[in-house]
Amino acid sequence: MQLYSYFRSSAAYRVRIALNLKGLAYTCVPIHLLKDGGQQLKPDYTRLNPQALVPTLVDGDAVLTQSLAIIEYLDETYPSAPLLPATPLARARVRALAQNIACDIHPLNNLRVLRYLKREMNLPDEARDTWYRHWVETGLLALEKMLADSPETGTYCHGDTPTLADTCLVPQLFNARRLKCDLSAMPTVVRIDEACRALPAFQQAAPENQPDAE
Amino acid sequence: MQLYSYFRSSAAYRVRIALNLKGLAYTCVPIHLLKDGGQQLKPDYTRLNPQALVPTLVDGDAVLTQSLAIIEYLDETYPSAPLLPATPLARARVRALAQNIACDIHPLNNLRVLRYLKREMNLPDEARDTWYRHWVETGLLALEKMLADSPETGTYCHGDTPTLADTCLVPQLFNARRLKCDLSAMPTVVRIDEACRALPAFQQAAPENQPDAE
Repeated sequence: MQLYSYFRSSAAYRVRIALNLKGLAYTCVPIHLLKDGGQQLKPDYTRLNPQALVPTLVDGDAVLTQSLAIIEYLDETYPSAPLLPATPLARARVRALAQNIACDIHPLNNLRVLRYLKREMNLPDEARDTWYRHWVETGLLALEKMLADSPETGTYCHGDTPTLADTCLVPQLFNARRLKCDLSAMPTVVRIDEACRALPAFQQAAPENQPDAE
Repeated sequence: MQLYSYFRSSAAYRVRIALNLKGLAYTCVPIHLLKDGGQQLKPDYTRLNPQALVPTLVDGDAVLTQSLAIIEYLDETYPSAPLLPATPLARARVRALAQNIACDIHPLNNLRVLRYLKREMNLPDEARDTWYRHWVETGLLALEKMLADSPETGTYCHGDTPTLADTCLVPQLFNARRLKCDLSAMPTVVRIDEACRALPAFQQAAPENQPDAE
């Protein structure tokens, strides 16, 4: 398998964690989002991924996009170390936790949006960082409630093995720390992030451990 | 089942379509996002949905949030009229099409974001509409490529029965028309939207046919 990845991309980071948790070998193909005017915009890449976003996973003849769709594909195709629980209700809980992050936090703060705020709307850096923190803190506060109030939360977001939800939580917390978001009101989120980052699968997926890390 | 819904919410609209396609009866509980300072922010509702977003589906004792997670739950629990295809690769394609919309278009343009642009960033209405159209047109152009270039696209996004992807496409096109986005470069998207809207399940889910429509 080849994973088209950028070391600091939150969405690529999720898929790296999933591949590692399942023990699947892959080759990293770095796509630098800032160099050469954005390597994700080159025709060779947009043929694979018309959205011009990372990641893209190539598995044999299959070309897959969208991090959550990729992880569900991996889970269905390589079932050992399952990343979703067995019952529909538990699966819905894990997917909702993941989508809280992947739909309602991350897309507001990815590179293309931050660029639009700066270039098209002439937003000063300070206001852009306020925007960033606002969506991270709003989203993670809701996640904290969803996690802290549920008996199904364990060492990780759902029980005592990592799931799809944890593959989203850790990259989002990486971004949150980077932008100095206030995490004081979300102890459960912080605790789970730390538990995950104690695992080799998460460590090996971290931005600083990628071949294209700067 | 009870669906906490707002007639114009794109995410609630997706779930209404899915319920109708499966022939599942439900009661609509209107949550008005603009009245009373936002009914979604009241404690009675945030106890069900800590994100303070619609929709929420209550199925017996189960409380479900996040539209895509809800639709996958419905598909697993009520398997007739499946909304995902059978093979992992086809499922990944349908999920990626859905997530293109649900992760990369819609979250940038929902009510809370448009409000933040206006109230916190003092963005004039015209610039806000430009922002809106930019993300819709960028996302739908990529969707057009994903659909037009694939032999798996049929009458609908994937083959000749509606799937999860179509439940996302039609509400997004409703929003696109409302904001007068330029859809001239996306004939496949427009064709599929029209095919979907010819079906009673989609018609009955439309904003104008909801009990809380204005």
